Amino acid sequence: MIRAITWVTEPRHAIRLIDQTKLPHTEEFIDVVSTEQLVDAIARLVVRGAPALGAAGAYGVALVLAEGAAKGWDDAAIAAAVAAVREARPTAVNLAWGVDQVAPLIPQGFAAVLAAAHAVAAADEAANRELARRGADWLIANYPREKYRVLTHCNTGALATTAWGTALGVIRELHERGLVEEVYADETRPLLQGSRLTSWELKKLGIAHRVQVDGAASSTILRGLVDFAIIGADRIALNGDTANKIGSVAVALACHRAGVPFLVAAPASTVDLQTASGADIEIELRSDDEVNFLGGQRLTPEGVAGYNPAFDVTPADLIDAIVTEKAVFEPKREESATVMARLATL
Amino acid sequence: MIRAITWVTEPRHAIRLIDQTKLPHTEEFIDVVSTEQLVDAIARLVVRGAPALGAAGAYGVALVLAEGAAKGWDDAAIAAAVAAVREARPTAVNLAWGVDQVAPLIPQGFAAVLAAAHAVAAADEAANRELARRGADWLIANYPREKYRVLTHCNTGALATTAWGTALGVIRELHERGLVEEVYADETRPLLQGSRLTSWELKKLGIAHRVQVDGAASSTILRGLVDFAIIGADRIALNGDTANKIGSVAVALACHRAGVPFLVAAPASTVDLQTASGADIEIELRSDDEVNFLGGQRLTPEGVAGYNPAFDVTPADLIDAIVTEKAVFEPKREESATVMARLATL
Repeated sequence: MIRAITWVTEPRHAIRLIDQTKLPHTEEFIDVVSTEQLVDAIARLVVRGAPALGAAGAYGVALVLAEGAAKGWDDAAIAAAVAAVREARPTAVNLAWGVDQVAPLIPQGFAAVLAAAHAVAAADEAANRELARRGADWLIANYPREKYRVLTHCNTGALATTAWGTALGVIRELHERGLVEEVYADETRPLLQGSRLTSWELKKLGIAHRVQVDGAASSTILRGLVDFAIIGADRIALNGDTANKIGSVAVALACHRAGVPFLVAAPASTVDLQTASGADIEIELRSDDEVNFLGGQRLTPEGVAGYNPAFDVTPADLIDAIVTEKAVFEPKREESATVMARLATL
Repeated sequence: MIRAITWVTEPRHAIRLIDQTKLPHTEEFIDVVSTEQLVDAIARLVVRGAPALGAAGAYGVALVLAEGAAKGWDDAAIAAAVAAVREARPTAVNLAWGVDQVAPLIPQGFAAVLAAAHAVAAADEAANRELARRGADWLIANYPREKYRVLTHCNTGALATTAWGTALGVIRELHERGLVEEVYADETRPLLQGSRLTSWELKKLGIAHRVQVDGAASSTILRGLVDFAIIGADRIALNGDTANKIGSVAVALACHRAGVPFLVAAPASTVDLQTASGADIEIELRSDDEVNFLGGQRLTPEGVAGYNPAFDVTPADLIDAIVTEKAVFEPKREESATVMARLATL
């Protein structure tokens, strides 16, 4: 159904994006036909979500070659344009990763690059489908229930990936097996990916759900209203600590206190071999304006400063399962050294 | 400085309220001169905050008598008007409490009722000042520091009380002693009391602060950026469990994990002798619209349901200190039975 990012050849070569800044009220697709337009779309979060940005990076290189051919760019101009795509959001590891997957093929020409980009996108979809199956199987084996009431944070669905989704993909898999009773979707301030995007996807999928403010998540969990919580990850450290959208660790803490299983779902490529633990993850601070303004309206008094960390870190000892397409890790049950050794070999 | 609620006699008898729905951008006072207008103001949250609502209830009875005298109401009409004030927000315990403090004096006439209402308001201010001193003293004695970095949730300042504030009153007391380095104010979705009201008060007081989304609180605490957290309470159960604005328990869980002291500040009247534990506190569900809309703009897709609990419960074992004007309780250190016995005698 929903495809956040695809390559189209008609009416001309372009990256077709659903404009996520206009959801949920307007479903508008944009055909991105230039490097400049792509960099702008990434910066404005027209396309977002770690796996989707990986595909955007890979297709971005193909777009650079198409534009370069039309405009007669030399190698230096092409290299500069590739670098611009790669750095459109400096902290998005997957964006650079996607570029790097296909850039070595530039000497072989446009067709080779485009084929490699298609392979990156196809691999992401396959990984999502497989990790969704593994996640559902793990949950059913470890916490069997007739139906599940689920809590999730941010958006990790088809909009955040090339197709299907990661954490929301697990929920979707459970839904297809008839096992989802209801989803509590955190609205996910400041950018409201939960109310705007997750809710839009769940509605399309016909999955019963309610949107709540982020502050309600802990209480909803402690009061016994959910059977498990599942989130995505922007980065997984070798010790099993995971970085994800701000507000995630509050969900983990409440689950730990309540004895409710807490799952993290992400492709194996999210494991960062360069990051030993969560303490090594730098927390991106985004603009105050996201906290101080909403819909152009100022929420705080003039001159007041905001504090706007984009991510937080959930320590491995609060995580029941890290679900990837290759294996499921159980940081609460397994020795930390074992988890590290296994993650390092993915 | 700020007075959220006062009784004025010029140009006529009225309850003067600062319209909190218009803050922080417009400082507008309303003179409430009729029962109907008062009920509307309470329902629309022109005046809010447990202690302020207590004063509104008490002054409301005086207002009923003034209006009744002008309009020739009989006893039945007066009783009906008093009941309307008392029930303007059914779950606000303090509102009914304030009405009940002065209603027995109705047979003695307007002057006696107004004097009693003034006494209710004065007692609240005195309680706030005293609990602020006790809270500051307790913190300094138990966690001495040169300066404190503080996190708070919702609004518990002069706007929520007749004057000074409870949790924010403790912060203000510390500020006057030169001990506040910085305050992290949670924005407090859905109604944004933090960004709109707490930030407005802190700016007026000249206290350095930053506003963050509620989801950031746990991470800010876990990363060692705050020295203590302090919140108010809408109800305190006999075992020391406290009910407060949704999102509060997330702050408590993070403090517990990080070893950061977590304080609750409230007048002794907040202890509810009828409530044995947090499990007995019914959680008020408010309208979905508060989650689904902001500033008239729909955030979620059409037809999506919200889930909007107004309060959550923080278990006593997560609380380092409950600060009242009469005593400081230490649920983490004291035997639960001792806390219960002491709370019951307040």
